[in-house]
Amino acid sequence: MPIKIVAFDGDDTLWHNESHFNVTQQQLRELLLSHAPDADVDHRLFGIEMANLKLYGYGIKSFTLSMLETAIEVTDGRIPASDLNVILGWGKRMLQQPIELLDGVRETLIEVSRTHSILLITKGDLFDQESKLARSGLGELFQGVEILSEKNREAYQLVLDRRGIEPDEFVMVGNSLRSDILPVVELGAVAVHIPYHLTWRHEHVEDHEMPTGGWHRLEQIGELEGLLAELQSRSDRKKKRASGPL
Amino acid sequence: MPIKIVAFDGDDTLWHNESHFNVTQQQLRELLLSHAPDADVDHRLFGIEMANLKLYGYGIKSFTLSMLETAIEVTDGRIPASDLNVILGWGKRMLQQPIELLDGVRETLIEVSRTHSILLITKGDLFDQESKLARSGLGELFQGVEILSEKNREAYQLVLDRRGIEPDEFVMVGNSLRSDILPVVELGAVAVHIPYHLTWRHEHVEDHEMPTGGWHRLEQIGELEGLLAELQSRSDRKKKRASGPL
Repeated sequence: MPIKIVAFDGDDTLWHNESHFNVTQQQLRELLLSHAPDADVDHRLFGIEMANLKLYGYGIKSFTLSMLETAIEVTDGRIPASDLNVILGWGKRMLQQPIELLDGVRETLIEVSRTHSILLITKGDLFDQESKLARSGLGELFQGVEILSEKNREAYQLVLDRRGIEPDEFVMVGNSLRSDILPVVELGAVAVHIPYHLTWRHEHVEDHEMPTGGWHRLEQIGELEGLLAELQSRSDRKKKRASGPL
Repeated sequence: MPIKIVAFDGDDTLWHNESHFNVTQQQLRELLLSHAPDADVDHRLFGIEMANLKLYGYGIKSFTLSMLETAIEVTDGRIPASDLNVILGWGKRMLQQPIELLDGVRETLIEVSRTHSILLITKGDLFDQESKLARSGLGELFQGVEILSEKNREAYQLVLDRRGIEPDEFVMVGNSLRSDILPVVELGAVAVHIPYHLTWRHEHVEDHEMPTGGWHRLEQIGELEGLLAELQSRSDRKKKRASGPL
């Protein structure tokens, strides 16, 4: 079947994201150092984020609430409100951060959108993701946008059903093995992994836990067009072979 | 045209919502009384919520962050972290609150869904709204769910376009004049207002600011079936008259 839809993840696939979380988390460690010098802030924060995930979901507002909880917890409530106000301010700064596209993103999206329908499929906070897309200046290239609260097999299946797409007509491109690759391979569609230099621990999957087929890895998004052409010609050959000699 | 789609707002139309915000805001007033006895907490909180709306959007996480900011601001940073932790806990409580359906909701949805496609169209936090719908037990009655970051004319138009519905085939039912009624009347569709006993100040519109036609007001959702039948028979008569005597 011809590839009809090429879908892209947003955060850390099209634009920088985890780096902003990293910078803020570094600031949190520094802020808490004077109040609780021995605290393993990263570890405590991650534990609190995971405990809150089922209540808060993903996104910057959730991260801010979990940072505040961590700050109060590791200082046994000794942290002054003025420092907590600083953390509130970090959340607001993150929500307004200018969108920096990764190298080659705009060019690749323009090229791929000439020959395929392209979708944005992100997870996280609806309001924040819509705002990022608007600020990215990429909005008009996408034929559709799907903001999901979780990217699992069922969520992808619903997107395909809603749009009347078969798995073998669908390619997903993203940086997270857990959210962009694994569930898509499970569906029988093709996934393309383009690693970002940072991965949130929650999204981490070891390579040896990955299925051996059904996905590809690229160094950077500029290589995508070549891969799509190759996938298409492989699929054409397979079809030709199946239909036998004329 | 026959009415094809009847769409319902969620918060304060199908289930109680504003009352939970009200109870929590009352607790915030009480908590802050000892630290800042003269503060007009409601006024300050509303100002902070409005200032944050363009960054945070709607929902409980946004409300929690704005309560924390209000508490720090009205106490000039004198509030102890342990009290701010109490506010964090209120947010979590609200996010887990059992869903209490309003009277007659389940019966009416079951009846209306026999003769029409029904949609849920809510605004707010994606994760929280999905969780509420799941907890409501009403999920399978709806043919579709649309969670919007803002309910304005453009957002409703996009929903109709996406689903291939004409405005005169669409009825919207909700408690907010600002979000459920005004933009829908502007589109040329019919809106049905069912007031809730509490209205968040941000959603308030005076009756005299409302258009004179294109919308109806019911006391409670149990009256909806009767109104839909009447609207349908009016539309049939109009069509008959337009086609002239046989």
